[in-house]
Amino acid sequence: MTVAEPVQRAIVLLSGGLDSATVLAEAKECGYQIYALSFDYSQRHRSELDAARRLALSAQVTEHRVIDLTALGALGGSALTDTAISVPEQGGDAIPVTYVPARNTIFLSYALAWAEVLAVNNVFIGVNAVDYSGYPDCRPEFVHAFSTMANLATKAAVEGHQFHLHTPLINMTKAEIIRRGIGLGVDYSLTVSCYQADAQGRACGHCDSCRLRAEGFSAAGIPDPTRYC
Amino acid sequence: MTVAEPVQRAIVLLSGGLDSATVLAEAKECGYQIYALSFDYSQRHRSELDAARRLALSAQVTEHRVIDLTALGALGGSALTDTAISVPEQGGDAIPVTYVPARNTIFLSYALAWAEVLAVNNVFIGVNAVDYSGYPDCRPEFVHAFSTMANLATKAAVEGHQFHLHTPLINMTKAEIIRRGIGLGVDYSLTVSCYQADAQGRACGHCDSCRLRAEGFSAAGIPDPTRYC
Repeated sequence: MTVAEPVQRAIVLLSGGLDSATVLAEAKECGYQIYALSFDYSQRHRSELDAARRLALSAQVTEHRVIDLTALGALGGSALTDTAISVPEQGGDAIPVTYVPARNTIFLSYALAWAEVLAVNNVFIGVNAVDYSGYPDCRPEFVHAFSTMANLATKAAVEGHQFHLHTPLINMTKAEIIRRGIGLGVDYSLTVSCYQADAQGRACGHCDSCRLRAEGFSAAGIPDPTRYC
Repeated sequence: MTVAEPVQRAIVLLSGGLDSATVLAEAKECGYQIYALSFDYSQRHRSELDAARRLALSAQVTEHRVIDLTALGALGGSALTDTAISVPEQGGDAIPVTYVPARNTIFLSYALAWAEVLAVNNVFIGVNAVDYSGYPDCRPEFVHAFSTMANLATKAAVEGHQFHLHTPLINMTKAEIIRRGIGLGVDYSLTVSCYQADAQGRACGHCDSCRLRAEGFSAAGIPDPTRYC
């Protein structure tokens, strides 16, 4: 009698954007049973969450949880959560005002908690340190330090269940990410990247995130399915 | 003309228990202007939050914020948030069921976010690795790893503002903590430690937290002001 391999399970952080949609497809391709995790932190681009729901449904994930993090939005300090701060339309060298204080630290901390409750050891996140906005919590050194901390933080880790943080896109250009996603069958028309997308998920075409996305499709030589306002 | 030293500011994680009350007093003694941070994660012992409010008022903190983390409680996995799991009345060698998955990681992540928004570099937390319940996220190696991660995670850190995590109680016994607090004028009758305190803040006298607290007062030779059910 052949004993079947147990199905491996993974949590995928799913924002609803291009990168996380690609990571979701990558985790599925690896054979993981998927638990998708999204966050409502009163972000301007609420249609991002609708995109996350469409992607989760399309990928037939086992469970999709949207965590209420309005407390993070209420702390302020970012153009993504504070309507008094404008979303910039030009990239620059400095970390932009769209940076949300400690966002990935908080997102990954919840993923760590949920992983422990589910007894899941694998977490995927679509951070990228090449064509990105310069956010410090997207860099490999941050990812490495978070993993080290996570493996000291939990009862699961103390009991020998190592926490593995997968960042398959971290060293890819946006064009490489798009080509990889197309190869995996990702329907990018389901995704929303724009920082100020309208309620229908239509993009502004001017913000940093729109710019990186459009340049990525152009460099990949793939038609851009983004709907603009 | 003498230029006055600028007042240093600090965030203090304030649960409402004995340890955090002592840390609050310690941070005040060091001359910090205090921003107190508490969390509502649907913990059984809700009167702990009332205690936190009393302590914050008594210490005349600059601001006291209570963050809604009901999403953490909803993840389950702990006797402190899931009424289907009983609070144990006997200590043991294993990490007890009162452990909340990734709790301190999430608490400190919010402190990191708030610190960045306030432009504060100092955060105090009352973790203790001597007379404690064996939670992994109270150990010095966890604290060290969190600090390392935090100093890679934020825009503030990239711009040279180091994040300092102060754990003045980490190597103290419960009796030493109590003696130190009494020396600093802490009114421990304001605090609630019990995992299943009633709505009036009266303690059960049987849980792990009650046991550690009672043994601490006894060893310190200081009258125990705890009100029991």
